[in-house]
Amino acid sequence: MSVSFFHSLMTPKSIAIVGASNNPMKMGTMHALSILKDGFQGKLYPVHPSEKIVLGQKAYASPGDLPEAPDLAMFVLPAQHLLPIFEAFGQIGTKYAIVITAGFKELGPEGIQEEQRLKNIAKRYGMRFVGPNCMGIINQEISLNTTVMPLRGKSGSLGMISQSGTYVAQTILYLQKRGIYFSKAVSVGNEADVNIIDVLEYFGDDEHTKAISVYIETIRDIRRFLAVASKITPRKPVIAQYVGGTEAGGRAGLSHTGSMAGNNSLYDGLFKQAGVIRAHSIEDLYGWGFALATQPRIRGNRIGIITNSGGPGSAIADACDANGCRIPVLSKSLQEKIKPLMPSHAPCANPVDLTFAMNMAVMTDTITNLVMQSGEVDGIVLHGAMSSGFMSAVFPHVAEMLPGLTLEDMLKQAARDLTKEVRLPFTHNIPMTVSAFFDRDDYYTEAYEDNGVPVYDSPEKAARAMCTLVRYKKILDRKPDTCISIPAPEPNAVQIINDALSRHQKTLDEYAAKKLLACYGFPVPEEQIVNSSVDAVASAKKIGFPVAVKACDPEILHKTEQGLVHLNLNNTDDVAKAFSDIQRRAGFPVPVLVSRMVSGKREFLAGITHDGQFGHCVAFGVGGIFTEAVNDIVYRLAPISRRDAEEMISDIKTSKLLGPCRGMPAVDFQAMADVLVRLSFIPLIHPEIREIDMNPLIISGERPVAVDALIILG
Amino acid sequence: MSVSFFHSLMTPKSIAIVGASNNPMKMGTMHALSILKDGFQGKLYPVHPSEKIVLGQKAYASPGDLPEAPDLAMFVLPAQHLLPIFEAFGQIGTKYAIVITAGFKELGPEGIQEEQRLKNIAKRYGMRFVGPNCMGIINQEISLNTTVMPLRGKSGSLGMISQSGTYVAQTILYLQKRGIYFSKAVSVGNEADVNIIDVLEYFGDDEHTKAISVYIETIRDIRRFLAVASKITPRKPVIAQYVGGTEAGGRAGLSHTGSMAGNNSLYDGLFKQAGVIRAHSIEDLYGWGFALATQPRIRGNRIGIITNSGGPGSAIADACDANGCRIPVLSKSLQEKIKPLMPSHAPCANPVDLTFAMNMAVMTDTITNLVMQSGEVDGIVLHGAMSSGFMSAVFPHVAEMLPGLTLEDMLKQAARDLTKEVRLPFTHNIPMTVSAFFDRDDYYTEAYEDNGVPVYDSPEKAARAMCTLVRYKKILDRKPDTCISIPAPEPNAVQIINDALSRHQKTLDEYAAKKLLACYGFPVPEEQIVNSSVDAVASAKKIGFPVAVKACDPEILHKTEQGLVHLNLNNTDDVAKAFSDIQRRAGFPVPVLVSRMVSGKREFLAGITHDGQFGHCVAFGVGGIFTEAVNDIVYRLAPISRRDAEEMISDIKTSKLLGPCRGMPAVDFQAMADVLVRLSFIPLIHPEIREIDMNPLIISGERPVAVDALIILG
Repeated sequence: MSVSFFHSLMTPKSIAIVGASNNPMKMGTMHALSILKDGFQGKLYPVHPSEKIVLGQKAYASPGDLPEAPDLAMFVLPAQHLLPIFEAFGQIGTKYAIVITAGFKELGPEGIQEEQRLKNIAKRYGMRFVGPNCMGIINQEISLNTTVMPLRGKSGSLGMISQSGTYVAQTILYLQKRGIYFSKAVSVGNEADVNIIDVLEYFGDDEHTKAISVYIETIRDIRRFLAVASKITPRKPVIAQYVGGTEAGGRAGLSHTGSMAGNNSLYDGLFKQAGVIRAHSIEDLYGWGFALATQPRIRGNRIGIITNSGGPGSAIADACDANGCRIPVLSKSLQEKIKPLMPSHAPCANPVDLTFAMNMAVMTDTITNLVMQSGEVDGIVLHGAMSSGFMSAVFPHVAEMLPGLTLEDMLKQAARDLTKEVRLPFTHNIPMTVSAFFDRDDYYTEAYEDNGVPVYDSPEKAARAMCTLVRYKKILDRKPDTCISIPAPEPNAVQIINDALSRHQKTLDEYAAKKLLACYGFPVPEEQIVNSSVDAVASAKKIGFPVAVKACDPEILHKTEQGLVHLNLNNTDDVAKAFSDIQRRAGFPVPVLVSRMVSGKREFLAGITHDGQFGHCVAFGVGGIFTEAVNDIVYRLAPISRRDAEEMISDIKTSKLLGPCRGMPAVDFQAMADVLVRLSFIPLIHPEIREIDMNPLIISGERPVAVDALIILG
Repeated sequence: MSVSFFHSLMTPKSIAIVGASNNPMKMGTMHALSILKDGFQGKLYPVHPSEKIVLGQKAYASPGDLPEAPDLAMFVLPAQHLLPIFEAFGQIGTKYAIVITAGFKELGPEGIQEEQRLKNIAKRYGMRFVGPNCMGIINQEISLNTTVMPLRGKSGSLGMISQSGTYVAQTILYLQKRGIYFSKAVSVGNEADVNIIDVLEYFGDDEHTKAISVYIETIRDIRRFLAVASKITPRKPVIAQYVGGTEAGGRAGLSHTGSMAGNNSLYDGLFKQAGVIRAHSIEDLYGWGFALATQPRIRGNRIGIITNSGGPGSAIADACDANGCRIPVLSKSLQEKIKPLMPSHAPCANPVDLTFAMNMAVMTDTITNLVMQSGEVDGIVLHGAMSSGFMSAVFPHVAEMLPGLTLEDMLKQAARDLTKEVRLPFTHNIPMTVSAFFDRDDYYTEAYEDNGVPVYDSPEKAARAMCTLVRYKKILDRKPDTCISIPAPEPNAVQIINDALSRHQKTLDEYAAKKLLACYGFPVPEEQIVNSSVDAVASAKKIGFPVAVKACDPEILHKTEQGLVHLNLNNTDDVAKAFSDIQRRAGFPVPVLVSRMVSGKREFLAGITHDGQFGHCVAFGVGGIFTEAVNDIVYRLAPISRRDAEEMISDIKTSKLLGPCRGMPAVDFQAMADVLVRLSFIPLIHPEIREIDMNPLIISGERPVAVDALIILG
């Protein structure tokens, strides 16, 4: 439903613009000129208080004077004049709007109020709008460009959604110089109404958009983003740059689109859970988007490198290796076919390095064809295709030796029809990225880009773009997500929480926390809570030595640091001593927990965190003393499916710890996944629970045991 | 001394070239044209078998016909014709040569032989040469360009050394489009004689070269590189891209310059030890080099961001934060000064975000001046300066509203004198990097670049370049390196090694290894070696419980995995049981080590590795079961100074483990540094020792104890 309204907003037949005049240096004028001159076939109605004609179009003094209610109204006037005229459009029945005007939420409290008034008007008249504080939209399907910058390029297949107007408008020329074209683009601004998720959902269904790039400073509805993106990524790649996870990035974002900074690791987890590829620069957001939007789906990670220079060939190999691709040695028989085409001393095992080649077609056509046909690689990175760019560069030196020959003559003589060879990736269904130090001044760069083969200005970038295709293949290869069904609350667990709440506790003590977890089948050590030395000794005997003895009080949070934990006790004397030591250190009579000692060298953590924006998330990572030092924790929004749990476990950097290592058996992967899945249900079963921390989760034998646990209520 | 010879090679007064003709499409001709047309004031002598005049210059049939022995001879002819004519130059007394010709070591065995012949000839005649298989040199000091590409740009201050010819020659136009100019550049090719270290040493002393970029596929003399680079980096920045550390990168490098692939982590350590900044792409190698070669030294890590667009401002903040810089909130008083210059709703806390600004000078001059003057930031990243680029982009739309006004008129009207404002970094001595989506078509980009202020085509790149200046500041701030003096061998240690050698052992058993280490003061647990259960029990009593009991035999390497290690034994029974269990599992009578049990949760490793190319290196990192999983190990060439040791300890990713954590005290930093320094001496004191592995090095209390040790001889 939300998609259909946004389709209407993106495909107006008539547009009114407020703020355009006959002064070409005004922003409103520039926006209007983009609509007028970039091919839009619908009507444009300038609304202007005094001018009769604006930009050659009949102008109207007010919305009421318009011959019809335009499908879309655009506003590029100072904020203080916006609301009345916005409302006037509502009154005549216009349903869609783009508010370029800035000066709302991003100003702070007074701006928030003003933005709320704008929203109220829209609501009153059933209007949907993009902005305020945005740069407009582009829809190449109907040649509509409402941004401030001319867009005289062809239509592409990359959809762009941006919380920064710059990345939709000011970069248009930058993108054209790199052969990158949008299918559609939306600058969402403050997202008072339409937000990036609405646009994402629409782009997900848009047949002209083959990949979606999203520039994000904050996501206002994390759960909906997850739901929407998760549905799109199994069939269409989504790339996201998130800025604002660092302290200063967050402050910058806050000031300019009125957004709250989010947490970097949580966004990382969100993107992984949703199958979204994360980029860390605007260049990659565009460049990877170009490759994903144009290239055939890659079938594996075997990359062939074809180059006319060793350095770039090595750099491509290095970057591919470092980013999950392999550079297989080509078969003897394939090498035999390639060798006669190359200089005698040139290597062709992969990289195929022609060294300095004057006959380009051998490289870009014959050899590329051979390698693509071979079935030995899944993708190709090509470096060094050049013709007119190189000639133009050397022409000043050779000109006088070629009397009467102009550069134009020379280029014309050298010009070949490249149509077929630049289409090779599509005829063979093998993706290709190209690295070239010559830009669109060169026929090759131009021909590749114009035929949808991305060209990058460095070997490493071409390699990393290829590796991004492989990353997307892994997203396509994810196990199907399974249905999540939340179990019913266990009466004993409800009782534990109610008891704590009735005592106004903010946390459950360790004993209660583990008893609650045990209700849901989490593995915890056998243990008893005692209030006397005699009982402690009796419990220890019953449980069996060695035991651990710890203070157990909901108010005491850092037991180890305070010396309130005694481990590996082997006899009754030591247990009695530990009991009295704990009483002494605590300074007041404190219950003591006697637990079976669980030992194991591998310590993980699993937990539930709560974030204002993300709500409950599951955490998994390295625990124990390594928690902070290794800082290897991944997050997902709770609840999670088994697929998510398995991905979390594999996602930690130190996932090797879960394999057989140093004489220890592999961790029971399914048992660990099970812990995470069930943990993720707890805050849904018990909304009273805010956070859970199982740390350490010790691997005893092959299975995880929650040796300590903390549950925070509220 | 090596420097003075290379200076002569770089500054010839006369050059002979073999391989140039009147065919402009031959490589030799192109090289000659570069010399002739790019401003070289010396003589050029073409040597050609038949032509009388080549490129307008009198040609000579052979070296013997030349009017003088040229200072430098250049060879661009097929490999099979090279040697005789190379020798003929030797005979007439030419001392320096550049061999462009390929077809030597990179071909394999036969090429190696041929290259040896070339070297022999050079040696016989006292000739020094660059190449073979290279692209030549550039020396802007004398306007000499011997590469295949025209170089009609101005002189810069970046020195470039490359094992790939492409990065010196084919990228010239690419670089000029980015405003990057070399002072000098050398393509070293196969390095049969002159290698990157010779050039590095020369550039280190060259006053025209302010920063040095090095593209590396292998370093042929690691120790000399360390010595030479270490001397340069405290006064001149060196940036290196090393390619070949991955399997495929290594293969690619091997095939094209005949080099051996090195190990990525060892190169990392080498660069850190030498104070070299490592880049991971050719773009950064050039781009960071540009910033380091031009900008004033940065004094701290406080960065001011000035932008006219929020997205790029946020992205710059994010990238700075993530790379070691801070974005301080500007003082109230500074904000008060800036606010009146900005639109009312624009934030100025830092980033200073003018939002859409039409009056550029306010941003690029007034505000930049204010922030630089304030003393509140150490560097500035600026985004969005634009004038003619933006106007050209919008001109097609506004043209007809400006009848009679051409684009040229419009640009002329808008043109301002930018000279002063683009010099601001130098007048204030505050470094600046610029991000712009408009390239040199824009006056601003052109003016900045031409005045030595680097402009990058993305906000993140401008930010990362600024962070690289901060990285170099940290290199300048390194403690002074201390003199290393190797102690004399301990007689007991000599005895232990001799005993093992006399028994033809390839390794020392654990007991012997630790005894040897103890000779040099390394902390090891108290322990005894025993051959009977009775002795084991006696030893345990003497040492005191708990003890560890382990098999001790130089042939048994993976004790834990074979169940030959019993830890935490608390009584005589358990010791006796452990002894017999070990005998049973070993299957033969094996000596047993009884050690005081050292416990501690933090386990590191320290060791000596041996690599064919690097020789002995010291290793330090996370040990115990985490060794492989966390894979956090750093290396330095042995021996190391105390400064190196301290840097190694701080360098590991998990260095927080050394601080106070989870109730444990901070590790004794000096004791740990001491272990590494002394360890690094061992292979120099005892060349019979090939490798040492202390793992785990357990932190007991605050101090490291080598609980297990392995020493490999040979």
